[in-house]
Amino acid sequence: MTEFTHDTAPTQFAAARGIRFAYRRFGQPGRSPLVFFQHFMGTLDDHDPALSDAFAADREVILFDNAGVGRSTGDVPETIAGMARHAMAFLDELGTETCDVIGYSLGGMLALQMVRDRPSIFRRMVLVGTAPRGGEDIMHLEKPSLAKRIQDPANRGYDVLKKIFFTSSPASQAAGEAFIRRLSQRKEDRDAPSGPKVASAQTMAFREWETFKGERFAELRAISHPTLIVQGVHDEMIPVSNSYRLSENLANAVLLTYPDAGHGSLFQYPESFTRHAGAFLSSDSESAVF
Amino acid sequence: MTEFTHDTAPTQFAAARGIRFAYRRFGQPGRSPLVFFQHFMGTLDDHDPALSDAFAADREVILFDNAGVGRSTGDVPETIAGMARHAMAFLDELGTETCDVIGYSLGGMLALQMVRDRPSIFRRMVLVGTAPRGGEDIMHLEKPSLAKRIQDPANRGYDVLKKIFFTSSPASQAAGEAFIRRLSQRKEDRDAPSGPKVASAQTMAFREWETFKGERFAELRAISHPTLIVQGVHDEMIPVSNSYRLSENLANAVLLTYPDAGHGSLFQYPESFTRHAGAFLSSDSESAVF
Repeated sequence: MTEFTHDTAPTQFAAARGIRFAYRRFGQPGRSPLVFFQHFMGTLDDHDPALSDAFAADREVILFDNAGVGRSTGDVPETIAGMARHAMAFLDELGTETCDVIGYSLGGMLALQMVRDRPSIFRRMVLVGTAPRGGEDIMHLEKPSLAKRIQDPANRGYDVLKKIFFTSSPASQAAGEAFIRRLSQRKEDRDAPSGPKVASAQTMAFREWETFKGERFAELRAISHPTLIVQGVHDEMIPVSNSYRLSENLANAVLLTYPDAGHGSLFQYPESFTRHAGAFLSSDSESAVF
Repeated sequence: MTEFTHDTAPTQFAAARGIRFAYRRFGQPGRSPLVFFQHFMGTLDDHDPALSDAFAADREVILFDNAGVGRSTGDVPETIAGMARHAMAFLDELGTETCDVIGYSLGGMLALQMVRDRPSIFRRMVLVGTAPRGGEDIMHLEKPSLAKRIQDPANRGYDVLKKIFFTSSPASQAAGEAFIRRLSQRKEDRDAPSGPKVASAQTMAFREWETFKGERFAELRAISHPTLIVQGVHDEMIPVSNSYRLSENLANAVLLTYPDAGHGSLFQYPESFTRHAGAFLSSDSESAVF
């Protein structure tokens, strides 16, 4: 399937656990694939081709809609653990014994749940703009600073992303424009945007993920997978303090933060992100340090 | 002077402000030099050849003893601002209009003071294991956890560094062994170790640096120099929270933190540090992102 790119890879379907999963798969087969775990309300068509095509140059990339999202059937679970069971069934159905993962926002939480449920599923993890269980101020879109931008009638469709994934600086907004153009490149075989049902269930999952029992963050210390943590220092959707707690408590994690960047730091600096994440993912060391 | 390396460069002297400064200079002349600012009690012979020789491959590297340290005359000032005036006079005497700086620990504070006093002196800054003015828990060597290791009679000379710059993990201690071996490579023309007079004045400077007037960290927002901040997540001498505050308040700073690392993260992972800092320093972009 090396002839396909992000914009041309056909949407395929796989059935597992009573769900029909929509996915796309492209890039150079060989070593274990790189799987992207998607953000709040994100579908197959909210992944950034500047990232997936860069990684697809030397390995297979897999994008998928989890249960109840995009063209995947079933209901969106109201817990991260529920979403993790679906994602695991999907990877099993594809015969994926081990993969690397880029988990962004909600997708990072999914990766953190899955690595506990089945450590062998991941070789290396990249966690971007995400939070550990028990993290703080996770995706409270009702906060006045965010609600104002989300509800502004001038912000429709992808324009909302430009306002909430990027800072107000001219450079960040210009990067936001470029990101939106990239998301609009693919013309056919697209997912419909997610609706309020997806939003509601995923928000319930965020609220549950904020709770914790016992010693806060203690479960992270048992995870020794090489991990690269990335976040923008001015992320208003999931504060950067969550990445600090991840890097302090995971045994084997490098943290990289970006200036003048919000929740969409990886989309703001795609060349830097793919260079660093690419170097990290191409290492075979037991250490996260690259 | 390209024939010289860290271990063979002769110690030279330059006079300015009534001080005779000891320094060494080696590497490939051409672009602006890279100046290292040294840590608490550190002399010319506490710089890591694995770092300076790596950077000297494509530019000149300058190491120096600030006033009252090593073979430099004068007294150690009891404020960072006082040390900054001496360092500026030294760079002026060498005709250095603009340079890059790697400021480590105390040396990072010096760099932060100098970039405010004369912004044109630095093109790009690398700040490792350091803290902004008003930072927290800066070099309190009297803390029981540190005092125990520093006063242990089993830890003499460089062995103390292995205990306080590295974590207790076998991997970190092995890296500490290698670091000490590198520090011992140079056999002649060495500085004597610093004594209690240096320690006392530099400790006074740390205490003054912890104080602040007005809004905490506000002065950092006026600094727009591309900056790379590096720290070990388990630094007990200057907690990593200080690097978080730096990266959040400096306008243009990338933060990189290392796992299983204490105050000496740059000496623990010299290959990774020189790769990242080298890529950062070779950029001509206005942005710190590399």
